[in-house]
Amino acid sequence: VSPALSADAPDARQYCALPDPFPLKRGGTLAGARLAYETWGSLNAARDNVVLVYTGMSPSAHAASNIDPSPGWWEDMIGPGKPIDTQRWFVICANSLGSCRGSTGPASLDARSGTPYRMRFPELSVEDIAQANHYLLTHLQINKVRVAVGCSMGGMSALAHAVLRPHSAEHAILISTAARAEPLAIAIRSLQRQMVMADPKFADGNYQSAAEVDGMGLARKLGVISYRSGEEWRVRFSRQKIAQRTRHEAFAPEFEVERYLEGHAERWRGSFDPCSYIYLSRAMDWFDLSEHGLTIDDAYARLGYKSALVLGVQTDILFPLHQQKEIATGLRCGGCKVDFQALPSIQGHDAFLVDMESFGPAVAHYLAELPLGTC
Amino acid sequence: VSPALSADAPDARQYCALPDPFPLKRGGTLAGARLAYETWGSLNAARDNVVLVYTGMSPSAHAASNIDPSPGWWEDMIGPGKPIDTQRWFVICANSLGSCRGSTGPASLDARSGTPYRMRFPELSVEDIAQANHYLLTHLQINKVRVAVGCSMGGMSALAHAVLRPHSAEHAILISTAARAEPLAIAIRSLQRQMVMADPKFADGNYQSAAEVDGMGLARKLGVISYRSGEEWRVRFSRQKIAQRTRHEAFAPEFEVERYLEGHAERWRGSFDPCSYIYLSRAMDWFDLSEHGLTIDDAYARLGYKSALVLGVQTDILFPLHQQKEIATGLRCGGCKVDFQALPSIQGHDAFLVDMESFGPAVAHYLAELPLGTC
Repeated sequence: VSPALSADAPDARQYCALPDPFPLKRGGTLAGARLAYETWGSLNAARDNVVLVYTGMSPSAHAASNIDPSPGWWEDMIGPGKPIDTQRWFVICANSLGSCRGSTGPASLDARSGTPYRMRFPELSVEDIAQANHYLLTHLQINKVRVAVGCSMGGMSALAHAVLRPHSAEHAILISTAARAEPLAIAIRSLQRQMVMADPKFADGNYQSAAEVDGMGLARKLGVISYRSGEEWRVRFSRQKIAQRTRHEAFAPEFEVERYLEGHAERWRGSFDPCSYIYLSRAMDWFDLSEHGLTIDDAYARLGYKSALVLGVQTDILFPLHQQKEIATGLRCGGCKVDFQALPSIQGHDAFLVDMESFGPAVAHYLAELPLGTC
Repeated sequence: VSPALSADAPDARQYCALPDPFPLKRGGTLAGARLAYETWGSLNAARDNVVLVYTGMSPSAHAASNIDPSPGWWEDMIGPGKPIDTQRWFVICANSLGSCRGSTGPASLDARSGTPYRMRFPELSVEDIAQANHYLLTHLQINKVRVAVGCSMGGMSALAHAVLRPHSAEHAILISTAARAEPLAIAIRSLQRQMVMADPKFADGNYQSAAEVDGMGLARKLGVISYRSGEEWRVRFSRQKIAQRTRHEAFAPEFEVERYLEGHAERWRGSFDPCSYIYLSRAMDWFDLSEHGLTIDDAYARLGYKSALVLGVQTDILFPLHQQKEIATGLRCGGCKVDFQALPSIQGHDAFLVDMESFGPAVAHYLAELPLGTC
């Protein structure tokens, strides 16, 4: 499954070949694996102006427009004069290992068998995503990242990268993320995976096409429920009814909030590979930074960040604010200078994608204060 | 579908025939409909010591042990010397109209066709549940309820009853409920209904047996996610793994929280009728007290409660605390004396069923302060 590219839009993606074979943390290897990535701005002569952006579960490497003029998933955050100012920074964003937007994942052909991996893909962990990003830096001859930026699963990936490769990043911006999955998030993601796998059309991973797996639509609806907040929807939808109902079968949607979820489900189904989805989802459940130290504090102390900006919002139910507080406390105990901010967004976990009025200035200010100089 | 009764356990249920035909608010009628109900304590000579308990979506009329010694769903709340003291009060609890625990619902035979209603059941509303409770009181020759008690959907039913029959209850205890469904709750319930209806074994309501509809298990898991809280699960499950895994297929449950959800799903599947479930679920989405007045305040003013105890908990995401605050404010504006309490439970929406240390004393104190005397 590839992102929809219009026929004549330039594809900004570049590819980095991963070591072959590429061993995964929990066992198994990938043959001929690669990462798709995009860049913005210019690498300076000292090669020390790198901002590496780790994505959440579903985004592609196209974080912002570049030679591909289509808007990216963080269009208002990255660009000339924007909070992550590409006149200063060389920004890199990779599609996560295991995803389906150009990088190797369960939807990719296994070079050894000539058929797609699907459910034969080895067990994927956040640490594998981090390692793949490490090899991308090696490929680009970058010794050290100036600022690692991770949102949601991307924050887990950034933490995994730093604990596996201490001091690989000098500073970090960790947004609406967690050092380990909590039971409510595990419960939600576990149920989402079951919705996908319970669909007969999933066929144990042998679906004809991603678009026919209706369970992906149901799972996405639960995703959207967990990504936003009751507070936002109270203001946005209230009890508004669908003005022009097009479906009249029994129990068809009646409320605007149902139509909104239907729209998300329809856009999602067929645009993301079902196996990629359940593999990435499970990777988040497994992630636990404390496995990388004698204690969680020990793990934080290994990361080697000089400073960090940690952001979260009160209305996030999937990565609740106390998890960002824990990260801030853990980093401080490890000797890192931390700026922790609870932003007033009502959009829940998704706020970092949509509430640029809150997140933009916080990120811009933190980066502006970072001293010039070498890593 | 009937509740599991052991072969020799006495059945405490009594039945009240509803008017025949019984018209429903949104159109259609039921033929030969009935309510199953149970009672505790004794009706006094003045017939003015009645506590009427309206249930949430799924409970039966068996709120506590009586001649049926099995524990009821509110066993610690109702009984001699308990918060709702049956030495003082004559307590009545009916299985809701539309449910499947003895009262007429979609799983019942339609006397006119000789086949179960299933998806041919007329559209069910909370107001219909309230009206059925009204006829139960008529059947029992009770003119006025001393205290109406409603939890969750039961609170909606109590409010509907009072607005349709003003002054039918003198006092009310409204717990973890709402005067109207909000978009987050609608989104969750809408998705639950879709999980049931998307299961091929649901077969548009023509399932062979309720137990085979796996979608009911998935819907129940989302129910449990919405009924409890991340805070509770953090303490209760943390990231504990299942000690003895019995299932080893790909993506089988690994965390204790997943096992907990599996247990709930297994107990639910086959014990509740899928059509009853989706009809009752939709009734909650539709309910809006403000439809019964020129404004919501006008509707509150019609209820006629002299006093009310309104309880909620901060960790409830399905019926969030601000909705109980709204009820308290609305009742006060309508001239009712209100005791509103936010209880410190971490168990979310389900707290009223499990946190008896918080809810028991609050209910006991309120009832103890009610003066003796006639309605």
